[in-house]
Amino acid sequence: MKLELARKLAQPASTKIILCVLDGLGGLARPETLRSELESADTPNLDKLASRSEVGLTVPVGMGITPGSGPGHLALFGYDPLEFDIGRGVLEATGIDFELGPDDVAARGNFCTLDAAGDIVDRRASRVPTEISSKLVERMRAIKIDGVEIFVEPVKDHRFVLVLRGHGLGDAVTTTDPQHTGAPPLPARGADEASARTAAVVNNFVAKAHELLKDETQANGLTLRGFAHYPQLPSFTEAWGVRAAALAVYPMYRGLARIAGMDPLPCPGGMTEQIERIKQRWDDYDYFFVHFKATDAAGEDGNFEAKCHALQDFDGYVPQIRALGADVLMIGGDHSTPALMAAHSWHPVPFLIHSNFCRESNVLHFDEQECSKGNLGTFPAMDVMPLAMAHAGRLTKYGA
Amino acid sequence: MKLELARKLAQPASTKIILCVLDGLGGLARPETLRSELESADTPNLDKLASRSEVGLTVPVGMGITPGSGPGHLALFGYDPLEFDIGRGVLEATGIDFELGPDDVAARGNFCTLDAAGDIVDRRASRVPTEISSKLVERMRAIKIDGVEIFVEPVKDHRFVLVLRGHGLGDAVTTTDPQHTGAPPLPARGADEASARTAAVVNNFVAKAHELLKDETQANGLTLRGFAHYPQLPSFTEAWGVRAAALAVYPMYRGLARIAGMDPLPCPGGMTEQIERIKQRWDDYDYFFVHFKATDAAGEDGNFEAKCHALQDFDGYVPQIRALGADVLMIGGDHSTPALMAAHSWHPVPFLIHSNFCRESNVLHFDEQECSKGNLGTFPAMDVMPLAMAHAGRLTKYGA
Repeated sequence: MKLELARKLAQPASTKIILCVLDGLGGLARPETLRSELESADTPNLDKLASRSEVGLTVPVGMGITPGSGPGHLALFGYDPLEFDIGRGVLEATGIDFELGPDDVAARGNFCTLDAAGDIVDRRASRVPTEISSKLVERMRAIKIDGVEIFVEPVKDHRFVLVLRGHGLGDAVTTTDPQHTGAPPLPARGADEASARTAAVVNNFVAKAHELLKDETQANGLTLRGFAHYPQLPSFTEAWGVRAAALAVYPMYRGLARIAGMDPLPCPGGMTEQIERIKQRWDDYDYFFVHFKATDAAGEDGNFEAKCHALQDFDGYVPQIRALGADVLMIGGDHSTPALMAAHSWHPVPFLIHSNFCRESNVLHFDEQECSKGNLGTFPAMDVMPLAMAHAGRLTKYGA
Repeated sequence: MKLELARKLAQPASTKIILCVLDGLGGLARPETLRSELESADTPNLDKLASRSEVGLTVPVGMGITPGSGPGHLALFGYDPLEFDIGRGVLEATGIDFELGPDDVAARGNFCTLDAAGDIVDRRASRVPTEISSKLVERMRAIKIDGVEIFVEPVKDHRFVLVLRGHGLGDAVTTTDPQHTGAPPLPARGADEASARTAAVVNNFVAKAHELLKDETQANGLTLRGFAHYPQLPSFTEAWGVRAAALAVYPMYRGLARIAGMDPLPCPGGMTEQIERIKQRWDDYDYFFVHFKATDAAGEDGNFEAKCHALQDFDGYVPQIRALGADVLMIGGDHSTPALMAAHSWHPVPFLIHSNFCRESNVLHFDEQECSKGNLGTFPAMDVMPLAMAHAGRLTKYGA
């Protein structure tokens, strides 16, 4: 559904919508048991809820397309992920509450370890702790380059954000990360004139930074990627007429939510605090986006057992989430992260929607196989938002 | 499938296609029994037919979008309902066989009851009977406004049609219906210059009409809505190469069919007459659209039992419909109207197609749950027409 149509059909209501995104929810069966993570985990609360819900599989971007976190979430928020693109640098910057201006170009930075020859030996500088990396970031703030204002901001561990502010900067700049060890950081290159100018600034910055870091043993180098301007997204909250809050522990997801027009509420303590915060702010919002990271982290690590445990952990919170009493409760994922692949994948993602107006699926278990037979079928993730709005009585009739 | 493609692929054949639209067919389970209207009704003929047909669920406009009657039918006729839009005024006017010209603006009118202060106390004037309302319509025909020709036509009960004929009239005119009682009719407003001129004429008309009606006790006021020009739809019959007839009791559905290029055949007596008429005109047409209203009426009334009875009534006609011997027989709906909601809804709609070339579904019962597991899946309603054409041997191969 196009946002212009949403703007026409959206109508006010007092109903509440909750979307829980289990990051990397979908999985794959392991050959020993022929059961996926969801099929192996003991999730009685999700199963019970699924049987009383409409269930199906969401396709985040398109058949065969493996989404990053940006498109995976944008689709669930009702944006066409092929139309709207958010650069990694922007995600990182907004995730730490950095206010990006329209002319800024943001990049995601990683500290790395270089050997004497200048080749990368550890792409994450042994995940240098934040206390150390934030001091290194402060040191890099001394770097000055003519015609450009430079911001360097710590994120967590080996990660930081670089923001270049100036007129006529382009963001079609290549990564400096060779993606493997045993090679030096690459020079940045620009695809057009404005981006070439930016690339020159970037290369200048990297040279100066390497000079400042050269005596470090752990974090004596850096790579940059995901150069991007702040995207011009139409406001989710305005289009759908909902006041929306985001409950996410990790900066990137708060950033994504903010780009869509949601208010990120602080909840560093995880699910218990996320649920508590919803209770506290119940009257202030119509739509709550809850992000749960552990499923993806375990999947990315290739740790099947840990992903099962993460699913069971989330399952334990389901009764409290249901007790919040939302009119519409949805549980899904931004993409699949099968432990078997230790990476994001293209596989459609289990999804359920529960309201007083759903056709109950009667499935026995919330998993990939059951959802593939579900009454919602296999459908584009960007249909999740209009579906939720309909169940919430927040969309008026289309046409006479 | 785009109509341009239909035009390329359509090939002549002597086969016959019947589409039965059970208005508002889809429903929702009631909590007491966990069964929907279709699941509760005793429909042995539909069940038997479904088991020998391909079945699925149609999505009229899109996930979460509740369609009006216009988009619901247009989609089944193969039009993209988001591309083609038909105003309510046009639907009403064509439904009473009023020949709209290209410059006309039509509106749907309702008689209402006003109190001494001019506030609406009954938005439908206690459904004033047609014998009375048609006399009031005649009285309003005396109204003259410079530069515009005015037609006022009775429809049924409290409903009438207003048509303004003149050069440079716009149809982006707001409704005068405040949508609730306790408030006066609103002045019409135009969104552009041409529409502002139309709005002025409308307000002038309403003032004069209220003067003429002021001594009535029941119908002493009126509201107008759905201002619209006649839409420029490509002809359905020309695109698909079928001679098409519409068998519909209610004016609006005859109007819709005419807009698509079908011939509405008179059949005020309902299903027995509709079937009889098909027999009589069998050789004159290739495609017959049969409209059955009772399911939607009961659903809109929130009367679960009545909707079950309507379904059983229709089921009783299925043997006669099958006996007509069409090569392709389809049974579906323009949208869902769950009695539980007493309104149209967004839920996908049960659908079956029967021909000598179908993969039999082997479902046990024609209902939402069984159709959701059907071999057609959940699919856009605008795919119904190409599917029917294929089963009828009326579409040639695409590409070499």
